Amino acid sequence: MSSKALPSRNEDFSEWYNQLVIRSQLADYAPVRGCMVVRPYGWALWENITAYLDAAFKKTGHVNAAFPTLIPLSFFEKEKEHVEGFSPQLAVVTHGGGEELEEKLAVRPTSETMIGYMYSKWINSWRDLPLLIVQWGSVLRWELRTKLFLRTAEFYWHEGHTAHATAEEAQAEMLSILDIYEKFSLEEAAIPVIKGRKSDSERFPGAQITTSIEAMMWDRRALQAGTSHYFGPNFAKAFDIQFLDKNNILQYCETTSWAISSRMIGAIIMVHGDDQGLVLPPRLAPIQAVIVPIFKSDAEQVAVMSVADRIFGELKAAGIRVKLDDRDNMSPGFKFNDWEMRGVPVRIEIGPKDVEKEVAALARRDRLGKEGKSFVAQTDLVPAVAQLLQDIQSNLLQRATEYRDAHIHEPATYDELKQIVTDGWAYAWWCGRAECEAAIKEETRATTRCIPPNQPDELGSCIYCGQPATERVYLARAY
Amino acid sequence: MSSKALPSRNEDFSEWYNQLVIRSQLADYAPVRGCMVVRPYGWALWENITAYLDAAFKKTGHVNAAFPTLIPLSFFEKEKEHVEGFSPQLAVVTHGGGEELEEKLAVRPTSETMIGYMYSKWINSWRDLPLLIVQWGSVLRWELRTKLFLRTAEFYWHEGHTAHATAEEAQAEMLSILDIYEKFSLEEAAIPVIKGRKSDSERFPGAQITTSIEAMMWDRRALQAGTSHYFGPNFAKAFDIQFLDKNNILQYCETTSWAISSRMIGAIIMVHGDDQGLVLPPRLAPIQAVIVPIFKSDAEQVAVMSVADRIFGELKAAGIRVKLDDRDNMSPGFKFNDWEMRGVPVRIEIGPKDVEKEVAALARRDRLGKEGKSFVAQTDLVPAVAQLLQDIQSNLLQRATEYRDAHIHEPATYDELKQIVTDGWAYAWWCGRAECEAAIKEETRATTRCIPPNQPDELGSCIYCGQPATERVYLARAY
Repeated sequence: MSSKALPSRNEDFSEWYNQLVIRSQLADYAPVRGCMVVRPYGWALWENITAYLDAAFKKTGHVNAAFPTLIPLSFFEKEKEHVEGFSPQLAVVTHGGGEELEEKLAVRPTSETMIGYMYSKWINSWRDLPLLIVQWGSVLRWELRTKLFLRTAEFYWHEGHTAHATAEEAQAEMLSILDIYEKFSLEEAAIPVIKGRKSDSERFPGAQITTSIEAMMWDRRALQAGTSHYFGPNFAKAFDIQFLDKNNILQYCETTSWAISSRMIGAIIMVHGDDQGLVLPPRLAPIQAVIVPIFKSDAEQVAVMSVADRIFGELKAAGIRVKLDDRDNMSPGFKFNDWEMRGVPVRIEIGPKDVEKEVAALARRDRLGKEGKSFVAQTDLVPAVAQLLQDIQSNLLQRATEYRDAHIHEPATYDELKQIVTDGWAYAWWCGRAECEAAIKEETRATTRCIPPNQPDELGSCIYCGQPATERVYLARAY
Repeated sequence: MSSKALPSRNEDFSEWYNQLVIRSQLADYAPVRGCMVVRPYGWALWENITAYLDAAFKKTGHVNAAFPTLIPLSFFEKEKEHVEGFSPQLAVVTHGGGEELEEKLAVRPTSETMIGYMYSKWINSWRDLPLLIVQWGSVLRWELRTKLFLRTAEFYWHEGHTAHATAEEAQAEMLSILDIYEKFSLEEAAIPVIKGRKSDSERFPGAQITTSIEAMMWDRRALQAGTSHYFGPNFAKAFDIQFLDKNNILQYCETTSWAISSRMIGAIIMVHGDDQGLVLPPRLAPIQAVIVPIFKSDAEQVAVMSVADRIFGELKAAGIRVKLDDRDNMSPGFKFNDWEMRGVPVRIEIGPKDVEKEVAALARRDRLGKEGKSFVAQTDLVPAVAQLLQDIQSNLLQRATEYRDAHIHEPATYDELKQIVTDGWAYAWWCGRAECEAAIKEETRATTRCIPPNQPDELGSCIYCGQPATERVYLARAY
């Protein structure tokens, strides 16, 4: 731990991020190009994310399973768009057990092909449908420019893969997963997101429809925080996933896949963090409250630690994830900075005067300085901390929502759009043609993010070409 | 699902096992040589195993983290025994992103090397110790003769890796983990195990001490069900894991590693299963109780399903993992066989007569036929099922313990040993020399399993060479 300050976000947002991830001990660079190590503090955060999502999937009838890490290269060639999309990103195993392999194997970049192969074995009748399987694990897509959590060769995720009897059912699944992702983002990560459909050029390789949730980072760039795809019968045809329907007619399944990855941790850092460091949403924070005892003499230490120990026990018993920082080689001030940098939502300070007055000082991470400080009676501490955690959670979402909304604009002209995307998102009419999208990207570095559903029944003109447009799209520079 | 009976265990234990794993839908063969797919039923069982162990590790101060799947080949060369042990088993990535790699990468067979490298970065002072990290995931060891769960190229596990300031502390860690493994086996898997030290020839490559828990399968063969290793400073020296002690002197750490893998599922199958199929211990069973409604007429269906639904809700609310089998294309008899084959501990039958009498029939999986059947008032069902689950859990452990003890013998002569290991375990004096161990293995196919601690302070003669021996060792043919 260095006591040197982080670069400010305004000064160098990228460097602020890079240093913060390392210094907060969320993750570290691995000695394998493009790869990361997720350290215990980062993994505890990921476990809180996965626990929520795993429960939400199970509640909606999904089950978990595990498929091999290695996939025969030939599998990728069965779906044309899929092989084009993923071939350049594969890590390839050519030798096993000291011998050259007849069939080369890829470290999985995603598992549609392997799971499609197994589904074709397992699915025979309409009674086997829907099949709703989720796999938790990691995948690997060759990547040399590492940015921890945001862009690494290996990353962590879940991948849901479902097979259905009808297109309607598969599309409903795709959308209901997107709803789970949105609810998770809002209620757990405190990140407002915009749901919508991706443009054709931004579709997942092999998908007929890709939907996503898009979030605005502090630097106003967009981050795709989760995706849910509808494949139609594409993969079913490539892997021969067929079933006998109720009329005994052989049909192809309709399939979906969807994912949220450890990228979400990057989003949490970039949406909520400030110049002092991480600001973690209480519902996901590995440590929700830290107790810092303050004393000088041995007598003070005895008195303070006795109260600190008692409070620790009370908060823990109440189900609050609490830590008592009793390190004896650091000053309270150093500890304050350290836990602020690591984003712990609530700090509880106990000094000799607090012991005397039977109070404790509470400092909330989302409001630094005097504004965020309060004193509560020790007898009220458990409900006060629980309430404060809720307040911080709501405040983070409200703050991020206001921030985002203040940086989304509707351009009337293409010149306005060019200006807007230098520092925000544009919500603009688009004719739907890939040419206009490509030209905008080329000229502004902004990409189409998503097309929200349920747009008002209006007509406009494409912000680029002026031709009639029936829908509006979000455009932004993105991670 | 086929209604053909399984081979009996006596007829062909190996084939009984292979067919049962597939037909119970625990796992399936993957289209990658040596690999398996763990299906949802098998993965739910694994999740119950991991949930217990994860909680036990966290309670004892361990934290989880994630290290890369790929490890530079050169890392393996840093510890002499380790490279000799694992080199022949590696799957090697030679190409990434379409190009040949300068540094070849192995799919991890175990992570001592990668984690050792990171520990050398993270550990500086005695204040950083102990470092107690667990990784959950899969590893790959090239293997062509697949036996699902027992021997597959890729398998699932946790690997604990800890670094300590002293040898005493590291050895205590190794032993306390072995205690957790033993407690898990007894209380959760209902499998009695023998704890002990491995012989030098059976040590993990690079370890100074390897300890294990050993279990007896139904065919009297042994299965190593968990291992815990003490490395001394071997890996610390290989990876330069050093710390400044309290006197400011640079010291090498002492490290440990330990694991239980998805092999444990194979043990559960082979210890408890019978000719009808799986018998899952209630504490780990994905489904603890299944309700099978029985009716002929529509009127009966209405009456029966109304009770079945109510009972389902009551059991679920009581925290029992319950399933209501309302499939309409199968007879109750077919369902009975199906759930017996899949090892569900308790079956609850509800027919029109039961509705009338306000009772339900309970059938326990560990005692088939009339002996295992009882009727309880519907109002008493929840406590009755809860009690029955506990009884089954205890009975399985007792039965397995009696079975094991009946098949362990103490040979007085080498001829007796040769006889014993054809159908059981021998507990025999051994001089400790590798030559005797190798000769016994060569002549009997039995290997040393483990040397239990706290042996009485006696002297004996080696069962093979007759030389003085201070310890006794378990010997058995093993998986």
